[in-house]
Amino acid sequence: MGLEIERKFLVKRAAWRPPAAGSRYRQGYLSTDPARSVRVRLAGGQAWLTIKGATVGIARAEYEYPIPVTDAHEMLDRLCRRPLIDKTRYRVELAGLVWEVDEFHGDNAGLLMAEVELADAHQHVELPDWVGEEVTADPRYYNASLVDSPFREWPAGAAESKPA
Amino acid sequence: MGLEIERKFLVKRAAWRPPAAGSRYRQGYLSTDPARSVRVRLAGGQAWLTIKGATVGIARAEYEYPIPVTDAHEMLDRLCRRPLIDKTRYRVELAGLVWEVDEFHGDNAGLLMAEVELADAHQHVELPDWVGEEVTADPRYYNASLVDSPFREWPAGAAESKPA
Repeated sequence: MGLEIERKFLVKRAAWRPPAAGSRYRQGYLSTDPARSVRVRLAGGQAWLTIKGATVGIARAEYEYPIPVTDAHEMLDRLCRRPLIDKTRYRVELAGLVWEVDEFHGDNAGLLMAEVELADAHQHVELPDWVGEEVTADPRYYNASLVDSPFREWPAGAAESKPA
Repeated sequence: MGLEIERKFLVKRAAWRPPAAGSRYRQGYLSTDPARSVRVRLAGGQAWLTIKGATVGIARAEYEYPIPVTDAHEMLDRLCRRPLIDKTRYRVELAGLVWEVDEFHGDNAGLLMAEVELADAHQHVELPDWVGEEVTADPRYYNASLVDSPFREWPAGAAESKPA
């Protein structure tokens, strides 16, 4: 088992400048149950199946397996719940940490979110100036939750990165 | 994608004699949704993750990946829905076909079911004398359904192999 320890933040759109070209991520869910989510992900010509357990504090059990790209295409096209998650991921290294900034498209367009993976739950994190409200503990921001309740359907003002 | 084409039958307990030692199967589900079930299976010291799509006629899309045994143990113990499926599988070769007979234990004790995998949906199947009612089209008999609604909780008389 891997243990995913991460913190998640909204991104201040006005302060954020993409560092370089991002990578397109296409992913879908076979289960959006937060206690046992199952994700199919396609990115950079590779594919993975990822299972995550319930979040305890800011940690979460994670199992990830590479799968054939053709299987992933088929599962995304035919099996996964709708809508799929479509996003561009930017990778930013800062002060020894790797930030992943996701710009969502489609049904979740308008959402701009940053994650930073940590070695332990108490690690100090220096926040870049484009980092806004922390949403680590808010399950609405799980990618799996964005299938059942896409950002575009949220009430206006529900999140600061929501477009006017 | 694999395509699983199979027919499923109840087994007449009085006529059935196990051919030899069976193998114990321990399996659990991360999703019991019939359109996208996700199964973790441990059997014979090996483990697999299996995804199945919706049944169309008697066929069903199937994707299966071997996974580390320790991952399977952890997912069965901590992530999979309850109850787990615990059964002994017997393998019988008859008239060029392989029959798998499952004797269920625990919450599904009393259920004795046979499956035969076919090369195509119209293949002729010679039925052994211990084969009873066909239940191919009855979703209650999916292993995934037996998690949400275990056999022991079915109303008496719901199935002929139900114990008195």
